Amino acid sequence: MIQHWELRLVNLFPYDTKTFVNGKFCKDPKQATADDFLFMWFRNPGNTANLLRSKATQAFVEQFLGLNTLGTSMARIDFAPSALKPPLSQPRGSEVLVMVEGMLLVGFVTSNQLKNTLFTKLNIGNTYALAFSGLSCQNPGVITIANAVFGVKPPISAEALTKAFQVDQKVVDYLQAQFWYNNN
Amino acid sequence: MIQHWELRLVNLFPYDTKTFVNGKFCKDPKQATADDFLFMWFRNPGNTANLLRSKATQAFVEQFLGLNTLGTSMARIDFAPSALKPPLSQPRGSEVLVMVEGMLLVGFVTSNQLKNTLFTKLNIGNTYALAFSGLSCQNPGVITIANAVFGVKPPISAEALTKAFQVDQKVVDYLQAQFWYNNN
Amino acid sequence: MIQHWELRLVNLFPYDTKTFVNGKFCKDPKQATADDFLFMWFRNPGNTANLLRSKATQAFVEQFLGLNTLGTSMARIDFAPSALKPPLSQPRGSEVLVMVEGMLLVGFVTSNQLKNTLFTKLNIGNTYALAFSGLSCQNPGVITIANAVFGVKPPISAEALTKAFQVDQKVVDYLQAQFWYNNN
Amino acid sequence: MIQHWELRLVNLFPYDTKTFVNGKFCKDPKQATADDFLFMWFRNPGNTANLLRSKATQAFVEQFLGLNTLGTSMARIDFAPSALKPPLSQPRGSEVLVMVEGMLLVGFVTSNQLKNTLFTKLNIGNTYALAFSGLSCQNPGVITIANAVFGVKPPISAEALTKAFQVDQKVVDYLQAQFWYNNN
Amino acid sequence: MIQHWELRLVNLFPYDTKTFVNGKFCKDPKQATADDFLFMWFRNPGNTANLLRSKATQAFVEQFLGLNTLGTSMARIDFAPSALKPPLSQPRGSEVLVMVEGMLLVGFVTSNQLKNTLFTKLNIGNTYALAFSGLSCQNPGVITIANAVFGVKPPISAEALTKAFQVDQKVVDYLQAQFWYNNN
Amino acid sequence: MIQHWELRLVNLFPYDTKTFVNGKFCKDPKQATADDFLFMWFRNPGNTANLLRSKATQAFVEQFLGLNTLGTSMARIDFAPSALKPPLSQPRGSEVLVMVEGMLLVGFVTSNQLKNTLFTKLNIGNTYALAFSGLSCQNPGVITIANAVFGVKPPISAEALTKAFQVDQKVVDYLQAQFWYNNN
Repeated sequence: MIQHWELRLVNLFPYDTKTFVNGKFCKDPKQATADDFLFMWFRNPGNTANLLRSKATQAFVEQFLGLNTLGTSMARIDFAPSALKPPLSQPRGSEVLVMVEGMLLVGFVTSNQLKNTLFTKLNIGNTYALAFSGLSCQNPGVITIANAVFGVKPPISAEALTKAFQVDQKVVDYLQAQFWYNNN
Repeated sequence: MIQHWELRLVNLFPYDTKTFVNGKFCKDPKQATADDFLFMWFRNPGNTANLLRSKATQAFVEQFLGLNTLGTSMARIDFAPSALKPPLSQPRGSEVLVMVEGMLLVGFVTSNQLKNTLFTKLNIGNTYALAFSGLSCQNPGVITIANAVFGVKPPISAEALTKAFQVDQKVVDYLQAQFWYNNN
Repeated sequence: MIQHWELRLVNLFPYDTKTFVNGKFCKDPKQATADDFLFMWFRNPGNTANLLRSKATQAFVEQFLGLNTLGTSMARIDFAPSALKPPLSQPRGSEVLVMVEGMLLVGFVTSNQLKNTLFTKLNIGNTYALAFSGLSCQNPGVITIANAVFGVKPPISAEALTKAFQVDQKVVDYLQAQFWYNNN
Repeated sequence: MIQHWELRLVNLFPYDTKTFVNGKFCKDPKQATADDFLFMWFRNPGNTANLLRSKATQAFVEQFLGLNTLGTSMARIDFAPSALKPPLSQPRGSEVLVMVEGMLLVGFVTSNQLKNTLFTKLNIGNTYALAFSGLSCQNPGVITIANAVFGVKPPISAEALTKAFQVDQKVVDYLQAQFWYNNN
Repeated sequence: MIQHWELRLVNLFPYDTKTFVNGKFCKDPKQATADDFLFMWFRNPGNTANLLRSKATQAFVEQFLGLNTLGTSMARIDFAPSALKPPLSQPRGSEVLVMVEGMLLVGFVTSNQLKNTLFTKLNIGNTYALAFSGLSCQNPGVITIANAVFGVKPPISAEALTKAFQVDQKVVDYLQAQFWYNNN
Repeated sequence: MIQHWELRLVNLFPYDTKTFVNGKFCKDPKQATADDFLFMWFRNPGNTANLLRSKATQAFVEQFLGLNTLGTSMARIDFAPSALKPPLSQPRGSEVLVMVEGMLLVGFVTSNQLKNTLFTKLNIGNTYALAFSGLSCQNPGVITIANAVFGVKPPISAEALTKAFQVDQKVVDYLQAQFWYNNN
């Protein structure tokens, strides 16, 4: 029998039918059960049958209430061969990515202050890949850049995008007409 | 004579030739002068003679050392007529924007979790406009989306961008060949 | 058309008729509108027809609910000629002050540990002046020293104030009998 | 033998001749000794032979380096009969006061937003009194109001104080000419 | 008359019959009274008539609601002669301990990373002793090691404890059969 | 080619031969390379050839400097069949544990305030198991309970442990004489 024990204070608060912390219901700790601290949706691979061929499964506080007040969360990311996880920004949290299977090319871009330098490490493979992200926030948020710029409803004005991306308005019209799949 | 007095503890630390806080030098508070807490570069308008016709002047801790440890900063943003401040992301800080002159169309896009909804308020003008941003961090960072995606050196692979933005590779090649001006 | 776009995650939480964060109601983000993120009370000057001839208009979370959880706020401060903003203390927040119009003499006093040194910068004018404060907290609080010491109800004991300010009790009685106007 | 054991991680960082955290030197944890975590200056009463007849002895990070990074501190406050601790403001920290000996009249004043209401609890005695303060910050700072307003060098302009405190300039001149004893 | 005045913003929030902060009810600040900020249960010694002959009386937010949002708390600890406060861990807060009466032998153990070094200072006495703890959190939590390991219900598996403590299972069975008194 | 791109600001600070943040050296961001953000020691399983048959490999800021200021870290935990990870306490950080291979019985114990209730979830297997921990702190610290109580040098007094654990002194002597292996 393999065992992993930990001493940890439970982040529950005295129960009241209307007690909230961070806008989430808090169970009476005397009624809490082990199931409240188990998240089962990492068991199966995310469905990668989409345009980008990758899928992130989030265990943020929204999906896993037991994380409330703990200041951390996780995500499982599945990549079919040739999959892409498009450029994204996480407004409320740092991330550590651990590769469990396969090889990825991972990169990040520095801010304007650091001249938008690209940091990359080449780890490329042709097989299915699996990674887990550890995040420094229970509710980190995700913004997929392309979707947030071109797929937003109502649309950002074509004039603004034409200037911002220095392209012909036809390109912007074309981009805004796409179907933007959200795989986060 | 108009006066504005405030009682505020100075955020200085005992001097030592090698004393740093947050990676910044700290002056001996006994040697600090009023000038250490004055930032003069908001006096003149930012130079809007650039492609986007707007300019942000930052008073972040990098430019204004007196902010160190105070957890706040400011920016002055000048807009010539028809100017654009392109889509950007600030990884470490919320922002409140106060319009001092002119009218702007301001918008922001929600995260994937909130379906990338566009919130806008129409305040459009034809004159020069001036705004100040109050930020919740002394070092908020700025990432101009278009520059960070298409203007980064070395470039993000065209293949990745082609998929992420669902366009022809010619469009990506064209975008990556542009000169990307950083007006932040 | 002048435009300023920003990518920013909205700080809303799943709606429930009784969902609070920091003791404030949170709207259903699916029902939030652009108006929730616009504060219009900076448009008009504050009324300076008072003893001190200055007026602070606050956009703290109390007045501008959209700031909830964002960790920042703003204030507009109007000064008629010869106006004074009396010594104050802000218990929960640092401040950056940007002058938009006119000239002020601004000062702050260091703590006992730094020997209560006065830092000043002379910027004096005879005209109307306008400043905006960017604050590092959504609910910074303001304590006007003179009001908090002499105008408090019920009053602090005259004996205590006589000792603390090292004056004749007649002076304390006189001060406590004043009408203390709160212009914050 | 009476014993009090605690499991607590030591807040030391790998030693380097020039390693600082929060602007304070950090010892090599392998060279730290029990003395680094003992503060002995609470053993003797503070000297109350001063105008206010009270004395605060601080164990802030400045006096007790072992507190660095721990986010808490303490003060011992001695009161001779009829002593006063004058109105003060602590810019970076909440406080819990525990009375060990004697009786005090303790009060605090709410902010302008809460109409500067005085909260008091009457606990008055004629004997020596001793209290300890537990503080929520390792470097909370103290600002004695009267000293910071009237005893500051160089002085705040008499004109400003005359308006702020709504008194005759003679009273301000008199106050500024006092010797202001700092018993914090 | 001895007095101790402080200017401090009250940590109350606008009243609503269902307004919570950190899962605690918040009174209407206009209805708050001085009693809300007075904790009277430190007046009497804790009952040391137990196996360990010591008793901690906590003024955490659970017992003293006025601490809510203030980020600090206190405990009174009474020790009869030969009393023991057993090894404990506080998961959410640092501590400063002030001895008011008597002598204690106090120790703490560093983390694995610092090789579990014991830091001790010998202050041993034969009389009743009294100490106060200032804590850096309003809800620090306490975990008495022996109780949490051997007195937990349902019990940790004897097999796991036998391995973890490298003892005979009989010792574990014996320990798990004890009555574990919680004096915190 | 599989790709995972992210926009993230690098947490580097202007270079100076003596610039530290949190007591760690900071590289000149202009000289940082992709290797600074890659941690390679999760590639190989931890060595489980020890008494407890489990091994934690830490990617905390001590081992992985690129995490500095990011507020998150990770650990890889390998378990041979029948392995145990003994009761531990992490003083500065919450944890999310993701099982990648095998089955574990995981438990945690609530604080005294919640009556030391054991929460468990049974996931037991006979094979090698692998888990990753995402932590809410870059420097969470680990305290293995048994080692910290019985394996500390110099030892905690046998008298204290005899009382705390309510056992015969022979048991304490025996426990203190063991070799305590630190597998964290």
